[in-house]
Amino acid sequence: MPLMWRVLAKITSIIQEEMEKKGCLQTLLPQLHPAELWEKSGRWQGYTAGEGIMFNLKDRQNREFGLAPTHEEVITTIAGEILHSYKQLPVTLYQIQTKFRDEIRPRFGLMRSREFIMKDAYSFHQDQADLKFTYEEMNDAYKKIFSRCGLKTVAVEADSGAIGGSASQEFMVTADSGEDLILTSSDELYAANQEKAISKPSEPIPSNFSEPSLIETPNQNSINELCIKQKLDPSQIIKVIVLLAETADGDKQPLIISIRGDQDLNEVKLTNHLTNSINKQILSISPITNDKLSSQGLDPLPFGSLGPDLNDSVLKGAKKWNTRFLRIGDLTISELKNFVCGANKIDHHRAGINWDSIGGLPSLVDIRKAKAGDRCIHDQSSTLNECRGIEVGHIFQLGCKYSKSLNSTFTNEEGQEKPFWMGCYGIGVSRLAQASIEQNNDDLGIIWPLEIAPFEVIITVANMQDSTQKILGESLYKKLKSKNVDVLLDDRNERAGIKFKDADLIGIPWRIVVGRDSKSDQVELYERSTRKSKLMKSEIAFKELLRTISAKKN
Amino acid sequence: MPLMWRVLAKITSIIQEEMEKKGCLQTLLPQLHPAELWEKSGRWQGYTAGEGIMFNLKDRQNREFGLAPTHEEVITTIAGEILHSYKQLPVTLYQIQTKFRDEIRPRFGLMRSREFIMKDAYSFHQDQADLKFTYEEMNDAYKKIFSRCGLKTVAVEADSGAIGGSASQEFMVTADSGEDLILTSSDELYAANQEKAISKPSEPIPSNFSEPSLIETPNQNSINELCIKQKLDPSQIIKVIVLLAETADGDKQPLIISIRGDQDLNEVKLTNHLTNSINKQILSISPITNDKLSSQGLDPLPFGSLGPDLNDSVLKGAKKWNTRFLRIGDLTISELKNFVCGANKIDHHRAGINWDSIGGLPSLVDIRKAKAGDRCIHDQSSTLNECRGIEVGHIFQLGCKYSKSLNSTFTNEEGQEKPFWMGCYGIGVSRLAQASIEQNNDDLGIIWPLEIAPFEVIITVANMQDSTQKILGESLYKKLKSKNVDVLLDDRNERAGIKFKDADLIGIPWRIVVGRDSKSDQVELYERSTRKSKLMKSEIAFKELLRTISAKKN
Repeated sequence: MPLMWRVLAKITSIIQEEMEKKGCLQTLLPQLHPAELWEKSGRWQGYTAGEGIMFNLKDRQNREFGLAPTHEEVITTIAGEILHSYKQLPVTLYQIQTKFRDEIRPRFGLMRSREFIMKDAYSFHQDQADLKFTYEEMNDAYKKIFSRCGLKTVAVEADSGAIGGSASQEFMVTADSGEDLILTSSDELYAANQEKAISKPSEPIPSNFSEPSLIETPNQNSINELCIKQKLDPSQIIKVIVLLAETADGDKQPLIISIRGDQDLNEVKLTNHLTNSINKQILSISPITNDKLSSQGLDPLPFGSLGPDLNDSVLKGAKKWNTRFLRIGDLTISELKNFVCGANKIDHHRAGINWDSIGGLPSLVDIRKAKAGDRCIHDQSSTLNECRGIEVGHIFQLGCKYSKSLNSTFTNEEGQEKPFWMGCYGIGVSRLAQASIEQNNDDLGIIWPLEIAPFEVIITVANMQDSTQKILGESLYKKLKSKNVDVLLDDRNERAGIKFKDADLIGIPWRIVVGRDSKSDQVELYERSTRKSKLMKSEIAFKELLRTISAKKN
Repeated sequence: MPLMWRVLAKITSIIQEEMEKKGCLQTLLPQLHPAELWEKSGRWQGYTAGEGIMFNLKDRQNREFGLAPTHEEVITTIAGEILHSYKQLPVTLYQIQTKFRDEIRPRFGLMRSREFIMKDAYSFHQDQADLKFTYEEMNDAYKKIFSRCGLKTVAVEADSGAIGGSASQEFMVTADSGEDLILTSSDELYAANQEKAISKPSEPIPSNFSEPSLIETPNQNSINELCIKQKLDPSQIIKVIVLLAETADGDKQPLIISIRGDQDLNEVKLTNHLTNSINKQILSISPITNDKLSSQGLDPLPFGSLGPDLNDSVLKGAKKWNTRFLRIGDLTISELKNFVCGANKIDHHRAGINWDSIGGLPSLVDIRKAKAGDRCIHDQSSTLNECRGIEVGHIFQLGCKYSKSLNSTFTNEEGQEKPFWMGCYGIGVSRLAQASIEQNNDDLGIIWPLEIAPFEVIITVANMQDSTQKILGESLYKKLKSKNVDVLLDDRNERAGIKFKDADLIGIPWRIVVGRDSKSDQVELYERSTRKSKLMKSEIAFKELLRTISAKKN
């Protein structure tokens, strides 16, 4: 609708200015993508039949197309056609356009909708050093963009997800309603999305056991219950989780995960580890349940009493699953001595256990959720704090992933054909608009930052029947407009109270109330964020607004 | 790509300014439309299974969506939700966004592509008079927009096609490559698309026959052959065409069309007449052939010798066709006396025939193509000329067609619920850009009008190795930029000739060549459209450019 459209236009123009300063060129790419391009990069199946995030259709000639959620395939193909020589590099192309995602649960207004506006930029380089330089330039541009939009943001290390590549960084608008959990170090030198965050956990409490023993643990199926009944600390226990990973090619691999009892599994880290180690796209990871076991013709497992050494024989005869567990342990399990773990027998645990007595350590990886209170890797005297955030930007060093798969090359200085080094850089334009509301609101409604407010000033004429008020309101409107102030005149025939409520709700930063004091040429100047107002001569209000607005804009 | 993107951005901002002057509000509507909305307006079948112009898909919940080629359904629904009272009217909402059409033959670059950028506006009114007022306002805005874009356009009466409604007007960029034929009166008071154009045809030549007679006409199956052999003028003959109309509900209706021998059938007029008279959507109109007759189990017809009184008995026993002809005549046939027409018998015609002797006149309608040389209706001393054009804008008075079918209403001053009166107003933004090229080009490439050129000025440094040239070129670039001139610096290490060729090709209106004369602070100022250049002091070139550009812009 028109008010939000004005916000989007202002955000757009801030983005365009900062992109232009970095020498980026604006373009407009197609929204309908031929399936062949996505088949070349290997993402068609995953984005359509697999995760199903990409709307897709057949045209009247029965050719397949996807509605673009992202543009790596298209821009990489175009770059291969228009960029031939290292002399033309680096080049950064960007667009601001609607993207599409067939979300499972569209929700929260503009936050997670099936159509949304993105700024996406793609850079092309002759080597990694040049990519890194542009990546830092974009990092700088992004910080300026969000700050100019009047937002408080945190730049965090992030997981690269389905886009891929090596380094990536997210920009988060901090807000209690955010979907993401962010961990920041107390010295402000480290910040990361919980999906990606690393840390040093607290030291485990040393074990009281020195000899192996079998203990009866009826009704002690959770770490918590076990701790209470057995007077243990969670850090003295090995938690065992059995999962099933399904890959794009239909493989179904059972997993045994071992992690220290006071820690939680980070599924994103686990997925990334699996993707890299078995070199297959992971479609899903889900808990193994007795129902699933039964569907494979397998017996129930002693859930609540599982140990890391659960024997592969429990998988024997599975209809479609692999019949050997992949055993993975979090780094936290390696230093534990004389720990407690399940005995693979209902209502029984073992105490005083060491790894060599149960078949040795599984392969060790960081698959743990970092959390508030953990010590930082870079400085163990600093600890992590948590807050919630809304992702509004994400920058990636893609490397040569797409240029290789799409065979997009240039001739380097030595005359050799080489794939481009690439970066990509996104901003959720429509999401940013809503994130601003999530960060700036009160019980009366929105409080727009001046820089992206649909209007900077609203003139509320209390009573349009009063010709003095009407004339003064209209003259102030014209004067402000002539100074290029974005001003809205509320000249409706409504009661003043209704007009004030509406103005507060839509969140225009400054309001001039033209009411009874018009007789003495006085108006009220009201600031939305502080709700403070002052009575003053109209000329003074006019000048004060010009001064405040121009100061804020520069 | 970036250069064309800059053109699109300039056109966009001209449109936004002129729309804003008329009080229109910009918005952004969804591109994916739920099928239900289009089913309510009755257009889903025609746009998908029927003509097939709308891409469509199913989402992950198996719900049907179309990719919008136009937005009447969506905006009418929204208006019904946000506009409640006559006090809120009139309102005009518009957007500038990519639209989609599954074209049978995408071609001519941006002219007929499957994704294209449109400006579409929709106005809502309490009565027809108010709609007409806004329609005229938009007419005015459109003329300003096209003129500001530096285009020569003609406003023509047009057929309303699939959009519907009463009055509509197209804006045509005149260009020999245009797909449309435009007829304009010599006094410039009338212009229309041939689909819609009306005129008074030339007077028929009086007949030489006074008595009915049967004449043998072997090998005289066309009007032309008949005229030559029988020494007739085409205006003395009744041409008979048999067609088959198929409707959306599967009805197949044979037609007999009678028209004066020197005139051509206008299928758009015929389709519109049929739609209104039988009150069904017409999917196609095609010639009846002997093959088609045979597929219905019918005997061949005496093509080449058909008369208006061809008996319905020839349709008797048709498998799926209606077995009675619908007989329609063009207005031109009514005044003919003693005319010649087919005798419904191979190689035989009749001469000296009058309507009462062959069963009377069929129902008469204007279904004739107006053409160059015809006399104008408004003044018969003025005649029609023809030229070709590219449609870049179209404005419609929709009336209540969509508000009624989508039940979109407001409360009028008397407290009654009434459907909105609506108008809609489109501009093909990306098509306009290419139409400008079609109108403004020569053997060297594009000649952009200054107002929408990607850059206003290009500075071509002939030899970047020459530091005098380099310094002067860069300083002129900075000076022009500081005056907000849109300037491009060609500082590539290429030969001067290549740079000149490129500059001509991309069509920047003004070029400053910084070459050998830089030593004496002289540059060449070159105008792309006239290809004229003058040597002058750089400061004079700078000032002349500023003067010329600012004069052109205002």
